[in-house]
Amino acid sequence: MTADVADRIAFLRGLRTVRQFRPEPVPDEAVADILDVVRWSGSASNQQPWEVVLVRDPDTLRALGEAEGFASHVAGAPLAAVLVMANRRPEQDTFDEGRLSERIMLAAAAHGLGSSIGWFRGDGPDQVRRLLGIPADRQVRTAISIGRPTEEAARRGGRRKPMASIAHREGYGAGA
Amino acid sequence: MTADVADRIAFLRGLRTVRQFRPEPVPDEAVADILDVVRWSGSASNQQPWEVVLVRDPDTLRALGEAEGFASHVAGAPLAAVLVMANRRPEQDTFDEGRLSERIMLAAAAHGLGSSIGWFRGDGPDQVRRLLGIPADRQVRTAISIGRPTEEAARRGGRRKPMASIAHREGYGAGA
Repeated sequence: MTADVADRIAFLRGLRTVRQFRPEPVPDEAVADILDVVRWSGSASNQQPWEVVLVRDPDTLRALGEAEGFASHVAGAPLAAVLVMANRRPEQDTFDEGRLSERIMLAAAAHGLGSSIGWFRGDGPDQVRRLLGIPADRQVRTAISIGRPTEEAARRGGRRKPMASIAHREGYGAGA
Repeated sequence: MTADVADRIAFLRGLRTVRQFRPEPVPDEAVADILDVVRWSGSASNQQPWEVVLVRDPDTLRALGEAEGFASHVAGAPLAAVLVMANRRPEQDTFDEGRLSERIMLAAAAHGLGSSIGWFRGDGPDQVRRLLGIPADRQVRTAISIGRPTEEAARRGGRRKPMASIAHREGYGAGA
């Protein structure tokens, strides 16, 4: 196995959610790379049913963090990516939104940045649509906060189920 | 920008769907890495609502490719990862299934392997549940075919919308 392969697997394996951020802004070159990775993301039938609103303004970030749901960490981040989905095919869009979110987190991690997915619930999506001027027919569910992790946040480990409970060979119930 | 950052961004940006595979088997070390990346994937509230059935048996792969839906490419792949979701929270699970799928494709790509997401539709999920012995209460929607790309498949480019139509700054309608 080459060093490149090992590095890439370690990179994928090592992604962890970060919710506490240092105040410094996200560099422009990181933002440009994140957007480039967004643009080249794959989607069902290559529909690319997404748009992204990048927010750096502190007042807007605070208002996003106060919207109903589970995105309060956005208020303390120097950057948020709010995902706007076409919502013509809700099931595919939800799946594609997950693909896109994972890539945004990984593109941020490539630059040493931490990130966290937050979801708007209840009145949250309408509040965010009004705040950012997003048309009513679009799905607004997810904001990803992005920034340099605090030292404490960078140390966090995470827990996962044992391999035997998630992997099967050739048929369900046959362990890895 | 360091070489590591540039390599990782190019790696993320370069992922393309591959549907035509060479016949050689996927090496065990690649399978182990894919499963490790699966295990460390992030999910809503860290629920890890997933299991994966890895299929290498040619007859089973052919039967998967014949199930109703859009996964016929599985029949020509040396390996398929069938995703089994808990389905207690369908919206979160669909989003998490997208996150997981993206990581499986990237882990495969780290090993120089191509992959494609296929969805089962209509009677497809029930056919696959019967084929693999998956309990009726689980969501079975996605199979990811994995293998070494044919030369032709490796050359494919892909098309994407222009950046200005997907990226906004501070508010919707403000271009990148």
